Amino acid sequence: MTPSLIETPKTTDATANSLDLWVTERFGSAGVTFKVNSILHRSESSFQTLDIIDTDAFGRMMLLDGCVMTTEKDEFIYHELISHVPLLSLPTAPERVLVIGGGDGGTVREVLKHPSVKEVVLCEIDGDVITASQEYLPSIGGFLENPRVTLEVKDGIAYMASLPPNSFDVILIDSTDPVGPGEGLFTHEFYTNAKNALKPHGILTAQTEGLMALPEGVKKIYSLLRGVFPHVRGYHATVPTYPCGLWSWSFCTKDPGITPTAHLTPQKAVPIEATCRYYNHAVHQAVFALPNFAKALVDG
Amino acid sequence: MTPSLIETPKTTDATANSLDLWVTERFGSAGVTFKVNSILHRSESSFQTLDIIDTDAFGRMMLLDGCVMTTEKDEFIYHELISHVPLLSLPTAPERVLVIGGGDGGTVREVLKHPSVKEVVLCEIDGDVITASQEYLPSIGGFLENPRVTLEVKDGIAYMASLPPNSFDVILIDSTDPVGPGEGLFTHEFYTNAKNALKPHGILTAQTEGLMALPEGVKKIYSLLRGVFPHVRGYHATVPTYPCGLWSWSFCTKDPGITPTAHLTPQKAVPIEATCRYYNHAVHQAVFALPNFAKALVDG
Repeated sequence: MTPSLIETPKTTDATANSLDLWVTERFGSAGVTFKVNSILHRSESSFQTLDIIDTDAFGRMMLLDGCVMTTEKDEFIYHELISHVPLLSLPTAPERVLVIGGGDGGTVREVLKHPSVKEVVLCEIDGDVITASQEYLPSIGGFLENPRVTLEVKDGIAYMASLPPNSFDVILIDSTDPVGPGEGLFTHEFYTNAKNALKPHGILTAQTEGLMALPEGVKKIYSLLRGVFPHVRGYHATVPTYPCGLWSWSFCTKDPGITPTAHLTPQKAVPIEATCRYYNHAVHQAVFALPNFAKALVDG
Repeated sequence: MTPSLIETPKTTDATANSLDLWVTERFGSAGVTFKVNSILHRSESSFQTLDIIDTDAFGRMMLLDGCVMTTEKDEFIYHELISHVPLLSLPTAPERVLVIGGGDGGTVREVLKHPSVKEVVLCEIDGDVITASQEYLPSIGGFLENPRVTLEVKDGIAYMASLPPNSFDVILIDSTDPVGPGEGLFTHEFYTNAKNALKPHGILTAQTEGLMALPEGVKKIYSLLRGVFPHVRGYHATVPTYPCGLWSWSFCTKDPGITPTAHLTPQKAVPIEATCRYYNHAVHQAVFALPNFAKALVDG
């Protein structure tokens, strides 16, 4: 998974002074490719290589170690689903939310739409992700200065281990893939600490990888989650710029009464869905209807 | 949309006598790319260029004019959804089904799972698609010899215009994109003829393109469908090898009582879902829960 940022130019139009420049992310033996208008930023942090490019099809795009993290055009799908599904499933109005990873700020932006939220803590290991998003992706990273946001630029694994019990209503693991800095966010120990940090009625939602791109990985993640949480569900949607598109998120609770729909009402969903391009009350329920092959991975 | 079949080799391992060969389908300024193990077949019919290649990630793949039509690994999603959703929504057991396009045979394979079906007519303009699928994609094209199948190798537009009224319970438009030979399958006249050929309780399901890849096209197709059918719904799922993944199909009826769920029962769905890798009773209902941005395209 070390895609080349710059593909062989296919044509050079000297009069227009333009290159036919494409960026390709390969995952194993398949990949996605995007025409690049310009390269806006490249940096090497202590953790990873960060690129911001402007693509023709998906607007501005952030890549970490060559993997697409978020794009202006399709980020709404991932960010609306990782946040509103758990937040609107709670029995009470959410007040304290923790986001691990997610330094681009898109998940925080969605969490802030819930007026009951008094504090959202964003724990991102790489401060460069935050500053690059604030500078180059203002529609995504432009909400991190909100007074209800607490930024913790530190290792999410150690931070989670340090939390007192019953700290958060919802914990969202908005991580990279389980390689490199994200690896420790997919372990029994980390999930156990997350469970302890949740309030009794709380919900843990993690991005749990691609159902078609990484089926064995998905299976392993859900097996780990079920080793810690007594109630584990999975939900899914398409993120066009992620490997094979078909993505998944977990819905883990300690309390069997906290299901995806037990506390969902149209009255709660409507004000949020009015602000969304993907999420709505019917979608909230539909994303839990897994295809047969995905049920076999998620339900074990 | 004239993708190059062969990308510039990136590395050449002389000792292994292998090329690092990739096929890339570009749609506008984005695309998908697949590592190629071998090229099995290439032919030029009167209508299009047909390639069968063996890919590392998706098994054998059929391309028409360089666009991915179907792959061994993910074809089940498209074929199960285009067929079982309308067939299991009928008020009576389906007996006569028409498939326009779909020469690979995957849709016919799924229709044949319904024991009540006495005849499925496959009208495919390009006989080479049928024979190539039978030879190279036996898990997809290997069901076309079934005695319940009638093959009509002819233009679907003229064939539809020639049909007597009330001929079919379900009509499935399993077409290519609205360019080249598929263009005339997205017109007011064609949909009007399809409506006439349907029984009063019948359902027309057409593939209606990518919600993210071709939003304006989707909008236009649904506007055309609503100009002909009094009741038009859309449903969606992810096809990983199609542009941007997020795909759509129509559900058009003359009778307002024929809805996606009015005649669906677990009893009807269970024997079919037991044979499926994607379709199940919950999925049948969930695929109609469109994201907000898709509702705006489909519902007009």
